[in-house]
Amino acid sequence: MGSADDADTAESIIDVEGRSVLPGFVDAHTHLVYGGDRAEEFGRRLGGESYEAIFAAGGGIMSTVRATRDSGAEELVEITASRLARMAQAGTTTVEIKSGYGLDVETEARMLEAAALAGDHVGVDVVRTFLGAHVVPTEYRHRRDAYVSLVIEEMLPVCAPLAEFVDVFCDRGAFDLDETRAIVEAGIDHGLRPRLHAEQLAHTGAVDLAVELDAISVDHLDHVTTDQAAAMAGAGTIAVLVPGVTLQMRTDAPDVAALREAGVTMALASDANPGTSNVELMTTVIALGSLLYGMSVEEAVWAATRGGALAVDRPDRGRVSPTDRADLVVLDAPHPVHLSYRVDRRPVYGVIRAGQIRCMVMETER
Amino acid sequence: MGSADDADTAESIIDVEGRSVLPGFVDAHTHLVYGGDRAEEFGRRLGGESYEAIFAAGGGIMSTVRATRDSGAEELVEITASRLARMAQAGTTTVEIKSGYGLDVETEARMLEAAALAGDHVGVDVVRTFLGAHVVPTEYRHRRDAYVSLVIEEMLPVCAPLAEFVDVFCDRGAFDLDETRAIVEAGIDHGLRPRLHAEQLAHTGAVDLAVELDAISVDHLDHVTTDQAAAMAGAGTIAVLVPGVTLQMRTDAPDVAALREAGVTMALASDANPGTSNVELMTTVIALGSLLYGMSVEEAVWAATRGGALAVDRPDRGRVSPTDRADLVVLDAPHPVHLSYRVDRRPVYGVIRAGQIRCMVMETER
Repeated sequence: MGSADDADTAESIIDVEGRSVLPGFVDAHTHLVYGGDRAEEFGRRLGGESYEAIFAAGGGIMSTVRATRDSGAEELVEITASRLARMAQAGTTTVEIKSGYGLDVETEARMLEAAALAGDHVGVDVVRTFLGAHVVPTEYRHRRDAYVSLVIEEMLPVCAPLAEFVDVFCDRGAFDLDETRAIVEAGIDHGLRPRLHAEQLAHTGAVDLAVELDAISVDHLDHVTTDQAAAMAGAGTIAVLVPGVTLQMRTDAPDVAALREAGVTMALASDANPGTSNVELMTTVIALGSLLYGMSVEEAVWAATRGGALAVDRPDRGRVSPTDRADLVVLDAPHPVHLSYRVDRRPVYGVIRAGQIRCMVMETER
Repeated sequence: MGSADDADTAESIIDVEGRSVLPGFVDAHTHLVYGGDRAEEFGRRLGGESYEAIFAAGGGIMSTVRATRDSGAEELVEITASRLARMAQAGTTTVEIKSGYGLDVETEARMLEAAALAGDHVGVDVVRTFLGAHVVPTEYRHRRDAYVSLVIEEMLPVCAPLAEFVDVFCDRGAFDLDETRAIVEAGIDHGLRPRLHAEQLAHTGAVDLAVELDAISVDHLDHVTTDQAAAMAGAGTIAVLVPGVTLQMRTDAPDVAALREAGVTMALASDANPGTSNVELMTTVIALGSLLYGMSVEEAVWAATRGGALAVDRPDRGRVSPTDRADLVVLDAPHPVHLSYRVDRRPVYGVIRAGQIRCMVMETER
């Protein structure tokens, strides 16, 4: 970290008047391109209805797929940019965005294109992941194999040039281990590196498959075991944890202590999506990492910066270093503990991206 | 609720363009007047230190008492007003504020005066509660009886004219049932109505005492029993629930289902304070009521409006009615479910207090 002594050699000096400076937040897991919202469904769940009943009535993820398919390219860019703008103001400088609400060739590609255009528009670095295997769409319910073939044979050739990573929701009710392996191996053939949604709804062994296939990360991990944590640590597989889902779905926290104990590298991400985590701001994610997952403030901040950067293969960021990109968040507080302490006040004073001042004084607090 | 048909007889019409309108939020439990903060101590707790160790080292509530005693009258008004202003912008129109960080005659009175002045300054209605019996201060640790006498004989005569309610933290490590009864009865003699901090840290029977003494509310209730819930319902004692504490202290939720089942009137409040709930905004409190306590959105909104109004004895507010005070929150959303759905976005478009527009367009979201 730069000290005041280095200021002699600096090209410019910004006096932050005792405020705390952190690396820009790197959000390593989002589904930020989508049409519509699922507020009404969320209200029904809080009122006691089950997700299964809602899904059976045409709600759940398929309602987002319909709304996304119905959204034009420009509209998708615009709504994604409005979300990205809120995130950027709260300190996010790099964000991973997945496809996965198209589930057809054209819409999957449109989502990935929209992600990049929205990032350019707002001035946030976007890292793209192809998630054609998010769920088997209703129209393929009785011919899963045909959908897996569609992903491999038709979507991947079109979408791989628009992405860096291939992801599969490998879980109960989504894709099984064999389907996941087939899709991931095809993605690797197209030059994509894998990452997996793993062990969220049930323990399936997805982590073991991810380790075998050299995935860069496994995300969620509500049902991870101690053995899997050891395997992840050995292989350097990063755990991407998403406390917004824990809050919104009212589930138990993953076993963060086991991951820590095993020496697994941890990242914190928003998983911003309309169904299971409508949290967008990394300030909130850091607070929830502390408050729901029992992470120390230092651990949560590291996971939301350096951990996230490693999880999206951007080793040139996520720390404050003279040799790294100057992506910085200036807190309106003397210490990062205020991120968790002022949970509903988002104490961000300003954001610097690649050395350029982006926004200052969102909310000032004495 | 007023309909568009009533508009013919209205003096003025504000077109909110399809946005949802709720009663102004009534925050029935706060400790908003205090010096300093406890961010560093909070960070140490997240890092694994126990509250007991922190308290033994001079931290905890006594550090807030020292900082509050050291704050001048003007300073206390100013910092309280800055907190109230944030709350008002997010829709709080009436707020209860307790003393309890002075623990001497002069500072307790100064806190209650500061609460009223800050409310006038910001334009929020403040309801004041005398909480001289918040904790036995260190200097009285070995002569508790002398402190109880101080509260009854010296504080109450000075503070009662500055408050409407008398409150006692009746819990393990705070005041026992006999001490609580003595203080509450003295408060009643001074014309104050009781409310109690009850069953938070341990089950003590404080709820039963509160029912016996006709307390308007019992607050916290982490350890409330089914029998106590029935007694509360029978007596009309209101349950003031504070999910910010549950989040920040990482404790289990109170048995909201048992309270609901018994037919207890529930209010949701922030308990804004520097040690155990640094949540300030009722938008956040409503979201946490849903997400941590399993309340439906309708139930949480009612508890944060009408429930709060009843808990602070302001029956003329907390609903949208032509005969009540026009304290209103205009959401930047078509339905209140967005309060819980957009947990980190506080979708408040504007606030009207006593018929006057106060602030508009905090944050606009499509």
